[in-house]
Amino acid sequence: MGKIAFEQNQHPKQKPDQSKLGFGKHFTDHMFIMDYTDGKGWHDARIVPYAPIALEPSSMVFHYGQAVFEGLKAYKTSDNEILLFRPDKNMERLNKSNDRLSIPAIDEEFMIEAIKELVRVDADWIPVEEGTSLYIRPFIIATEPFLGVHASHNYMFIVILSPVGAYYAEGIQPVKINVESHYVRAVRGGMGSAKTAGNYAASLRAQVEAQESGYSQVLWLDGIEKKYIEEVGSMNVFFKVNGEVLTPELNGSILDGVTRNSIIALLKSWNVPVVERRVSIEELFEAHANGTLEEAFGTGTAAVISPIGELNWDDKNIVINEGNIGELSQRLYDTVTGIQRGTLADTLGWTVKVEK
Amino acid sequence: MGKIAFEQNQHPKQKPDQSKLGFGKHFTDHMFIMDYTDGKGWHDARIVPYAPIALEPSSMVFHYGQAVFEGLKAYKTSDNEILLFRPDKNMERLNKSNDRLSIPAIDEEFMIEAIKELVRVDADWIPVEEGTSLYIRPFIIATEPFLGVHASHNYMFIVILSPVGAYYAEGIQPVKINVESHYVRAVRGGMGSAKTAGNYAASLRAQVEAQESGYSQVLWLDGIEKKYIEEVGSMNVFFKVNGEVLTPELNGSILDGVTRNSIIALLKSWNVPVVERRVSIEELFEAHANGTLEEAFGTGTAAVISPIGELNWDDKNIVINEGNIGELSQRLYDTVTGIQRGTLADTLGWTVKVEK
Ligand SMILES: Cc1ncc(COP(=O)(O)O)c(C=O)c1O
Ligand SMILES: Cc1ncc(COP(=O)(O)O)c(C=O)c1O
Repeated sequence: MGKIAFEQNQHPKQKPDQSKLGFGKHFTDHMFIMDYTDGKGWHDARIVPYAPIALEPSSMVFHYGQAVFEGLKAYKTSDNEILLFRPDKNMERLNKSNDRLSIPAIDEEFMIEAIKELVRVDADWIPVEEGTSLYIRPFIIATEPFLGVHASHNYMFIVILSPVGAYYAEGIQPVKINVESHYVRAVRGGMGSAKTAGNYAASLRAQVEAQESGYSQVLWLDGIEKKYIEEVGSMNVFFKVNGEVLTPELNGSILDGVTRNSIIALLKSWNVPVVERRVSIEELFEAHANGTLEEAFGTGTAAVISPIGELNWDDKNIVINEGNIGELSQRLYDTVTGIQRGTLADTLGWTVKVEK
Repeated sequence: MGKIAFEQNQHPKQKPDQSKLGFGKHFTDHMFIMDYTDGKGWHDARIVPYAPIALEPSSMVFHYGQAVFEGLKAYKTSDNEILLFRPDKNMERLNKSNDRLSIPAIDEEFMIEAIKELVRVDADWIPVEEGTSLYIRPFIIATEPFLGVHASHNYMFIVILSPVGAYYAEGIQPVKINVESHYVRAVRGGMGSAKTAGNYAASLRAQVEAQESGYSQVLWLDGIEKKYIEEVGSMNVFFKVNGEVLTPELNGSILDGVTRNSIIALLKSWNVPVVERRVSIEELFEAHANGTLEEAFGTGTAAVISPIGELNWDDKNIVINEGNIGELSQRLYDTVTGIQRGTLADTLGWTVKVEK
């Protein structure tokens, strides 16, 4: 591995209007690439102009979905410093995903250095307007040109960068969510705790149907009993019931979210009771019925905190906190984004500076 | 859609030695491609030189695994005719996979014509030695350059061809199979009945572990109770118990195999009792204990019939039919391959001729 080669993009693009970024539509001028070859390991780390990649049509990723990814963000502070939020957590999780998918491990420290280097190269692309950031997408794909199911002998590790605004068109506005009782995303013994392409493919159909009925996301139930809450499309979920914050425990079929982990740590530091356990959908609907379901929100890198304003479960529909963002949700959002942007003290040591 | 454009490969490759083909390693001189754009539908059908394809690194297939595929074969008969085996079944299944993955449907008739045309163009690549054939791999990948989980607005449909020998190194020799009791491949409500990339990604880890213990494949159990037999890596399974042939019913989490369907039809035409129902692994081990488990085999396009010589389930191990191919398994193999190669009468109307 060692040094990172660099090839400057001679044709930089025009940067998009910061007030109309959307999410995941624009990409910067460079990308990081590194190859894996059996026997040789990861090699040829390089930063090159952002461009299409050429792959054999028989590349295993197209056929057998051996692919993992991560998502994290870089922020520019008011004094022009660049901060990453807990990149060590993302690289640790990437290696867990690699392990589940039989993809060779990466060197976590080196990858953080590579990400920093790439962010430095494209630093001018980091937007500064309220609610914006630079989304970082590391991903690994199986590239061996072979038909037949086995773990690939070749891979590409790529990092691309996208200046982003809000993930949901609604922004911090509460979202309407449908509880899915037919389709299943992941099950115990499956690959639900890995950040791998197939889990998202498995979610599409339910997502399409939910949107057709006016919901922006799906809340998944466990695949065995269809009773216990798992997570939302790309967020973990939290519910404040009678002063206590509940979130599904890490059971092997949901993602160990970095935002989830941070929210739990913050709540503990504030002495707000927070419990990780199995949470049934029935329990939540009962809590709503007796007036103790106070707040509900999703957590994830893209949206940070996304309040849940409405939950639909078969023919039952509940509105949470009159469809408004809750007080605790707002405080969590303000605190996490404040730490991420360097406007609040980073008491938990989460941000990592990208030196100039 | 309409006409298929054609660009001849000016640099044809040397053809591989027919006695050393292996499976899925060699590709012919041309491929078929067709694009999908929202609003425009499938368009620009073309046969072009086989070559790498250039994709944006943000193409959705790399991140969210929205991809489906098929697998079928072309055979050259002793009088130089080219036969496809039940291509209508594959195209029908492809559209079922498309539906589950929220990918737009394809025109099945047109695709059979396109496959025929491609096979005609590369007809010289069809091997003729015993046990060889031309494997046909149609696949669809999501190509929209976008980060964020939704159904893609752009796709590519590609067909590639590979001259192949035996799928298993063992050939028609019985294989040793491990019954997987920890990992799960697919579950009711998931995407197990679709031929989609993520299902194979989900199977890799167990496959790697089985191979390390000396088994060539994994036999999956249901994801809910871990009691009922599902299928093998890329084959459906059959068990002959006390004169009756049992195979797991189509329960939504296994693939509706074309070979499975053909085997059931053949057995019925021979008046051999065949039953599709839930089959527990315990039942099979009991049948073995009382001497009624007579034969076991997997079925799939790649291997056609693959006898199971040994089954391992946790710490229990059984040898079936003394590790030899059973009489019925052999008869089924001979009949199906005979029909496929045109040496036996195609009484069930399964083969489709590729006119010159
Ligand atoms: C399935 C899923 N759950 C939860 C999350 C939240 O994880 P994180 O907070 O690390 O972004 C994500 C993604 O980002 C996800 O894809
Ligand atoms: C998971 C799985 N099951 C069964 C089969 C057998 O299906 P077919 O007979 O159509 O080839 C295949 C593949 O080919 C498969 O991938």
